[in-house]
Amino acid sequence: MLSSEVKRELQAVVGPDDVRDDPESRLAYSYDATPMYQAMPDGVVFPESTEEVQAIMKIASRHRIPIVGRGSGSNLSAGTVPVGGGLVMVMTKMNRLIEIDQDNLTATFQPGLITKQLHEAVERIGLFYPPDPGSMHVSTLGGNIAECAGGLRGLKYGTTKDYVIGLEAVLPSGDILRTGGKLTKDVAGYDLTKLLVGSEGTLAIITEATVKLLPLPEDRRVMVAHFTDLYAAARTVSQIIAERIIPCTLEFLDQGTIRVIEDYAKIGLPADMAAILLIEQDGPTSVVERDIERIAEICRQAKAAHVQVAQSREEEVQLMSARRSALSALARLRPTTILEDATVPRAAIAPMVEQINRIKEKYGLQICTFGHAGDGNLHPTCMTDARDREEIERVEKAFEEIFDAAIRLGGTITGEHGVGLAKAPFLEWKVGKSGIEVMKGIKRAFDPDGLLNPGKMFSKETRRRVVIT
Amino acid sequence: MLSSEVKRELQAVVGPDDVRDDPESRLAYSYDATPMYQAMPDGVVFPESTEEVQAIMKIASRHRIPIVGRGSGSNLSAGTVPVGGGLVMVMTKMNRLIEIDQDNLTATFQPGLITKQLHEAVERIGLFYPPDPGSMHVSTLGGNIAECAGGLRGLKYGTTKDYVIGLEAVLPSGDILRTGGKLTKDVAGYDLTKLLVGSEGTLAIITEATVKLLPLPEDRRVMVAHFTDLYAAARTVSQIIAERIIPCTLEFLDQGTIRVIEDYAKIGLPADMAAILLIEQDGPTSVVERDIERIAEICRQAKAAHVQVAQSREEEVQLMSARRSALSALARLRPTTILEDATVPRAAIAPMVEQINRIKEKYGLQICTFGHAGDGNLHPTCMTDARDREEIERVEKAFEEIFDAAIRLGGTITGEHGVGLAKAPFLEWKVGKSGIEVMKGIKRAFDPDGLLNPGKMFSKETRRRVVIT
Repeated sequence: MLSSEVKRELQAVVGPDDVRDDPESRLAYSYDATPMYQAMPDGVVFPESTEEVQAIMKIASRHRIPIVGRGSGSNLSAGTVPVGGGLVMVMTKMNRLIEIDQDNLTATFQPGLITKQLHEAVERIGLFYPPDPGSMHVSTLGGNIAECAGGLRGLKYGTTKDYVIGLEAVLPSGDILRTGGKLTKDVAGYDLTKLLVGSEGTLAIITEATVKLLPLPEDRRVMVAHFTDLYAAARTVSQIIAERIIPCTLEFLDQGTIRVIEDYAKIGLPADMAAILLIEQDGPTSVVERDIERIAEICRQAKAAHVQVAQSREEEVQLMSARRSALSALARLRPTTILEDATVPRAAIAPMVEQINRIKEKYGLQICTFGHAGDGNLHPTCMTDARDREEIERVEKAFEEIFDAAIRLGGTITGEHGVGLAKAPFLEWKVGKSGIEVMKGIKRAFDPDGLLNPGKMFSKETRRRVVIT
Repeated sequence: MLSSEVKRELQAVVGPDDVRDDPESRLAYSYDATPMYQAMPDGVVFPESTEEVQAIMKIASRHRIPIVGRGSGSNLSAGTVPVGGGLVMVMTKMNRLIEIDQDNLTATFQPGLITKQLHEAVERIGLFYPPDPGSMHVSTLGGNIAECAGGLRGLKYGTTKDYVIGLEAVLPSGDILRTGGKLTKDVAGYDLTKLLVGSEGTLAIITEATVKLLPLPEDRRVMVAHFTDLYAAARTVSQIIAERIIPCTLEFLDQGTIRVIEDYAKIGLPADMAAILLIEQDGPTSVVERDIERIAEICRQAKAAHVQVAQSREEEVQLMSARRSALSALARLRPTTILEDATVPRAAIAPMVEQINRIKEKYGLQICTFGHAGDGNLHPTCMTDARDREEIERVEKAFEEIFDAAIRLGGTITGEHGVGLAKAPFLEWKVGKSGIEVMKGIKRAFDPDGLLNPGKMFSKETRRRVVIT
C-alpha cells in the first residue's frame, strides 16, 4: 500500500483515478505473462504525458519507491513483476501515434501504442515496420523496445533494436534524456538509443520513440516442407542460406510439436515427420517467385517427404495454421506452459534440438521445440504443472542444462524474451563476470539508487553452472 | 618518453622491437588524418595478440599511463591524437581474418584488418559487408568499429553498428569482455556490442570482432542527374524515397564542389549546375533496372537538366569520377582542408545546404558541400590555411554555426566521423546535460581511472551555444 503522503502527491500529478492501491488493482499488476512469478506492488499509476512521468519519477526518487514500467505485460521473463514492491507505472494511456514521416521514412509514437496498430497504420500507406513478436496484437511498442522484441522476421529484417533510432526517456531524477533522431547516421557520443533498447526498464522510462520504416515489400509467398530426418531439415536451412537466399521467415516445428498440433487441430500433419519447415519470402514479385522455386528445389534435393507452395492466400493461411496454433495446442496439455528461448547460431540448430531432446528424456519431461530456425532462436516449451514442486524442480534443472547447452554451442540464454527475473541467475553464464560488472556500472550511471525495476537482469546470486559430461 | 621501468615491462611483453619511444616514432603517432591536431605520446606499442593487449593494459593501469588505441589513423575527429600523452597502442599487427562462416553468414577478424581486404575476401565468395567509409582502402576494421564508420551505402544498408554482432575487448583492468556472438537475436543483458561500436577507444580495446554478412547483390547500376535548382535536387531525393525506392547510394555535390572538380579534372561538368545527384541501385537485375528507370523518370519530371544512366562499367567509372575526385580536387585549393560531417534528417538537406551557404558568406570562407544526400549526411568542406590564425578563427565560428543549424533542423554534430577531440566541446549541444552525465557514468563503468583515450568525447568545457537569429 502507498503511504497517504505518496498517494496524495501522485494524485496531485495524475488525478485521483490514475493512482490505485486497492487490492484488486495491485493484484492485477502483480504478474505478467510469465508463469510462476508474482509479487504485489504497493500501487499502480497511469501517466498520460512525459511531464507526468517526470513528476512521478521525482516523487518516487524522493521517497525511494521502486518504479516498474509496464505496457501490456506480455513479456515472458517476469520482466514486469514488481518483485521489489513499489509502483507499477502502466504506460497504456500514452498510446498516441504521433507521426508517420514519409519523407524521412520514420514513425514516432508514445510507448503505449499497440505493435499491431503501428503495423496497420504504416502498411496502409505502403510502409513497413518489420519486428513482429508473437504478442504483437496485444503488446505495446514501449514493451517491445524495453525487451528488444524479436519475431518471425528476425532472420531477414533483424529485431526491434535495428529499427529504433530515437528515444525520449525519463531518468529516475525526472530529467529527460533525448537520444538519436530521424537520422540514419549519428555518432555523437555513445549509442544510448541502442543501449536503452533491451534494457528492460532498468535504466529509464521510455516516453517517446522514433523508428525507421522500410518500403512495404510488394509481394510474399509461403511454402512448407516436411522432413522425416531432423538433420535433413537443419541442413536444408543451411543450404538455403548457402544459396545466398535470405527468406523473410524460416520457422521450425519438431516432431513433438507436430504431434500435439495435429492432435489438437486435425489439420492433416503426418505424425511420423521429424520436422516441418515453414518458409516465407517477401520482396518484388519476380524475386519472390524465383526464391521460392529455388527453396522448394533445395527441399526436394534434401529428400523432404512433402513440399507445398501456397497457391492462394487461403492455402497460405492453412499452411501457416500449424505454426500459429503451436502454442495454443501445447498450452492445453498441462496447467502450466513454460516457453523458453535458448538461441544458437543458425548452423547449430540440429545439435541444439538433439540436446533438448536428450535433456527432456533425462528429466522425464514433456518438452516440444518450435521456433525461428533461420535465426537460431528456438522455443523449447515445457508442459508442466506449477503446483507439482517435484516436477518443477526437474523443469528448472532441465532448463539450466538447456541454457548451458546453448552457450556451449555459441548461443545465448535468451534470444528475444529478455533476462527479467526468470534468467537473472544465468546472465553471468553468457556475459561473464566482467560483463556483469560493466552492466552494473551502466545501471548505476542511469539509476544510482536502483529504483528502476529492481531485481531484474542482475541476480543476487549466479546459479552455479552444472558441468555436463 | 617512457620511464625505463615501464619500457622494460612492456618489452618483456611484446619484445624490444614492438615498444618504441624514439622521437621519430613518437612524432609519427602524434597526429592522425585530422588537420590541426597534434600531441606527442610517450611511447608506441604494437601488440600481436589479445594476451599482449591484456598485459599492456595491466602495465598501463598499474602505472596510470593513458592508452590510445589506433588503427591506420584515418579518422577525421582527432580521435587518435594522444592529447593526454601515454602510449599509442597500434593494432595493425593484429590483422588476421580469422574466419568467414558461410553457414552463419558471419566474418570474424582481428581489429587491424584493412576494411577493403574484408570486402574483397567476402565478395570473392558471393558475400557482402556493406559499410564502405571513404578511407576503406587504408582504414582498419577496428578503427571502423571504434568510430562506427559510415559510408556511401548507409541509406540502404546502415553503418558499422548494424553489422557488428560480437566483440572481444580488453578492459583497462586487463580483463576480457566478450559480447554477442554469431547470433541475430541475443538479449542477454545490455547490448554492450552496440555500445562499444562508436565508443572511440574510450571504453575498451577491441581485439576481435564478428560481423554479419549479406548475400552479394547480383547486379548494380549507376546514374547521374544534373539540376539547375538546389531545391529541385533535394525534392528529387525525397520523391525517390516517396516512391518507396531505397537506392544503394544517393550522393550529392553542390555547385561549389562541381566547379572545383571541373576545374581540376576537366570531366565536362557544367559549371552552371546547382547540384548533381549520383545514384546507384543494387539488387536482382530486374529490380535494379526497374528502379533505375523509375528514378531517371523522377529526375526528368523534376526538370533535371541532364539525366544519364551508365550503359557500361566504363561509363559508370566516368560518372562516379566526379564524386570520387571531390576531396582531392578540393584539397589542392588551399593548404588545409577541413572535412566536416554535420548531418540532418534526409528531408532537411536543402535548408541545410542553404544554411551552410549563408554561413560561408557571413564569414567570407570557401566551403563546398558534398555528401550522402540519401541519409542526410553532408560533408561541408572548408579550404583554409592552418597558419592563418585569423582565418581559422572564422572557420571555427562558421562550423559552430553549422553544427547549431544542423541540430536546429533535427540533425547531429557528427554523422560518421565521431566526436573525438574536434567535436567534444559540442557534444552537449546534441545530447544535453543529462546525456553527457549518463555517458560519463558509462565511461566510469568501463574505465574508472580514465586511462582510455583521455580527452576524447568529453570536453572540460562545452562551447557556449551562439544564438543565431
